[in-house]
Amino acid sequence: MLTQPPKGFRDFLPEKAIARNFVIEKLKVLFERFGFDPLETPALEYGEVLLGKYGEEADKLIYLFEDRGGRKLGLRYDQTVPLARVVSQYQNITKPFKRYQIQPVWRAENPQSGRFREFIQADIDIVGEENILIEAEIITCALAVFKQLGFKKTKMFINDRQNFAKLDKKIITAIDKLEKVGEEKVSEEIQKKMGYDIKQAKKILWQIKNTPPSNNLKTLFSLLEKSNLKQGVDFIYQPTLARGLDYYTGIIFEAFDENYNAGALGGGGRYDNLIGVFSGQKIPACGFAFGFDRLLEAMELLDLIPKKSTTTKVLVTVFSENLLEKSIQITNYLRQNNINTEIYLNPEKKLDKQLKYADKKGIPYVLIIGPEEAKKNVVKLKDLKTGKQQEVVLEDILRILSNL
Amino acid sequence: MLTQPPKGFRDFLPEKAIARNFVIEKLKVLFERFGFDPLETPALEYGEVLLGKYGEEADKLIYLFEDRGGRKLGLRYDQTVPLARVVSQYQNITKPFKRYQIQPVWRAENPQSGRFREFIQADIDIVGEENILIEAEIITCALAVFKQLGFKKTKMFINDRQNFAKLDKKIITAIDKLEKVGEEKVSEEIQKKMGYDIKQAKKILWQIKNTPPSNNLKTLFSLLEKSNLKQGVDFIYQPTLARGLDYYTGIIFEAFDENYNAGALGGGGRYDNLIGVFSGQKIPACGFAFGFDRLLEAMELLDLIPKKSTTTKVLVTVFSENLLEKSIQITNYLRQNNINTEIYLNPEKKLDKQLKYADKKGIPYVLIIGPEEAKKNVVKLKDLKTGKQQEVVLEDILRILSNL
Repeated sequence: MLTQPPKGFRDFLPEKAIARNFVIEKLKVLFERFGFDPLETPALEYGEVLLGKYGEEADKLIYLFEDRGGRKLGLRYDQTVPLARVVSQYQNITKPFKRYQIQPVWRAENPQSGRFREFIQADIDIVGEENILIEAEIITCALAVFKQLGFKKTKMFINDRQNFAKLDKKIITAIDKLEKVGEEKVSEEIQKKMGYDIKQAKKILWQIKNTPPSNNLKTLFSLLEKSNLKQGVDFIYQPTLARGLDYYTGIIFEAFDENYNAGALGGGGRYDNLIGVFSGQKIPACGFAFGFDRLLEAMELLDLIPKKSTTTKVLVTVFSENLLEKSIQITNYLRQNNINTEIYLNPEKKLDKQLKYADKKGIPYVLIIGPEEAKKNVVKLKDLKTGKQQEVVLEDILRILSNL
Repeated sequence: MLTQPPKGFRDFLPEKAIARNFVIEKLKVLFERFGFDPLETPALEYGEVLLGKYGEEADKLIYLFEDRGGRKLGLRYDQTVPLARVVSQYQNITKPFKRYQIQPVWRAENPQSGRFREFIQADIDIVGEENILIEAEIITCALAVFKQLGFKKTKMFINDRQNFAKLDKKIITAIDKLEKVGEEKVSEEIQKKMGYDIKQAKKILWQIKNTPPSNNLKTLFSLLEKSNLKQGVDFIYQPTLARGLDYYTGIIFEAFDENYNAGALGGGGRYDNLIGVFSGQKIPACGFAFGFDRLLEAMELLDLIPKKSTTTKVLVTVFSENLLEKSIQITNYLRQNNINTEIYLNPEKKLDKQLKYADKKGIPYVLIIGPEEAKKNVVKLKDLKTGKQQEVVLEDILRILSNL
């Protein structure tokens, strides 16, 4: 019988799941440090909630199906549209509403492209305020998060979508690929899509590259400097930055780290019209989404995540059926005192088999209580990495294990 | 435009999401304390993986749909079948494999019944060992978790499915409802489904109620007593316990708390044949699933969750555009020193509006830095609950806030 996860979907065995938990916990603590509170929305939304918000290309990637009542449902495609729906549904939410959300999203991507169909997004957003302090707060928080996660050379690339106000959408779509495919290809796409000749396309490109920063950007940059962030080091103006999604209306930004060149670690911007689609009134908003898989990959590459194949610290072995009760009692004692403890769950297995289990699983320490030890009221503590073992009196075991 | 979540689905605004996070964090720590490691599986599985594992009734509740390639996919219905698939797919996982899993599951329940269509399950399972120590470990862990969460009167009701080995499945299905509907209704269902008269039905019921504990149960009970658990207090034999799902093969159990009578807080048991369906070889397993919604409801009822509408501790107000930089700097300083801090994000708003924001959001403290305070290098710290305010020199603010 079939035992694979569906194409584009992944199982996370303990080692990987432990690393993921490590990063998620850090993100939660940091988001809350900046005054963002958690929000959860359902995996499924009504189809009409999702459709028409992200752009035509994206709509094709939404997992849609009909429920038994013939109602169209879709799997969460991002966390911004659900946020917009929530803000419209619960009108008395205190604003500005600062929320974070860390949940999976689903996209029917072509798995050949190396993209996954299920992945976690970690978002921070502020809803209900148009002051440019919002952008400063979002960018400051995102940069602080990268720093606290251990990244050393993260830079925020910033632009203003207003710069593109007069440009055809096809040109923006082409420009969006500049970092990935280079100027030549972008120029080709502009020629093809717009019916321009090479000279016209190059001119458009040149104009975009040489757009001066808007007043809005200048204000933002001076605010960021008040937070001790440095232009050119922590953030930089990039007039060619476009961002794919349809709903952005103002300042947009993307974070890259010099030590990781497989792409942006996250991105965001202002979207002042999206929430109005649901509520009928204009509610300004701005946010940033961390690409969790990228973040994890980059952190693993840069050795920012402690490697652990198990969260267990010590295995209590079981010498024999007779001594089982002793092992159970020590196990209970350690667990009650906050030591992550396993007990070997078959007293019929020989001791060397039990040690092998601990070793294979990556449990760092093992306790042995044989007849000798039981008589003397001691335990043998073995360090599986060094192979060293010591006899420890019961009163000391907790102190010793806590300090290891 | 529609702003509701789909029927049977829920949004969790900050206050609720904070409570959920509180419980999930506790569960993770406790599961790891008992040597369980995390596992994550995808939300979607191939239809054939899910179908035929839970019983006919359950199959109807699986969310199934076809992807663009015409392949049948289904949303995760529980975490046990995905675990069985994973164990079969990754044959070299060290066994016994102890894993926990805390993810949402989806069931197309009738929302009129008060059931949700999306809810979190929190599972612990041990795979690859048939020793009865496994059951003891699972039950010990589950009871310890309830205790650590603050429950005072949780009891595990235990039975052995082997007692039902010779009974017709229809009788088991009827018996399963005994706690909910009472003896009369169960007897009626047995009469109807089996074509029995009332005497025959009552006799069957009497026999089940008076089945003596199996040898397996006796061994389990003596093991539980070795962990200082008391029969009649912490666990009890209940010969009528049946559990709905098809895949159980041996000892089964369900946890109830005397102070919460809206139903079981969780349940589990041994299922030695399920994994073999995927792998072709018999792999024994046993586990326990915590009903997360029930747990949360019970804990809220029993006041076991601190009430918090925000995770933010202090709001730094902004007195004026001129003093914005001061407020930004204090905000940065507090955040760098691990205080959950918000800064008010519009310097044009009057101070009383800013205080009202903090109050409405439930932020307990507010900092005010006006021209006076700026000159004297102090801040005003206001406790919004008591209304008291004090002047604090900058050097002291961190110490004071940390201790509040």
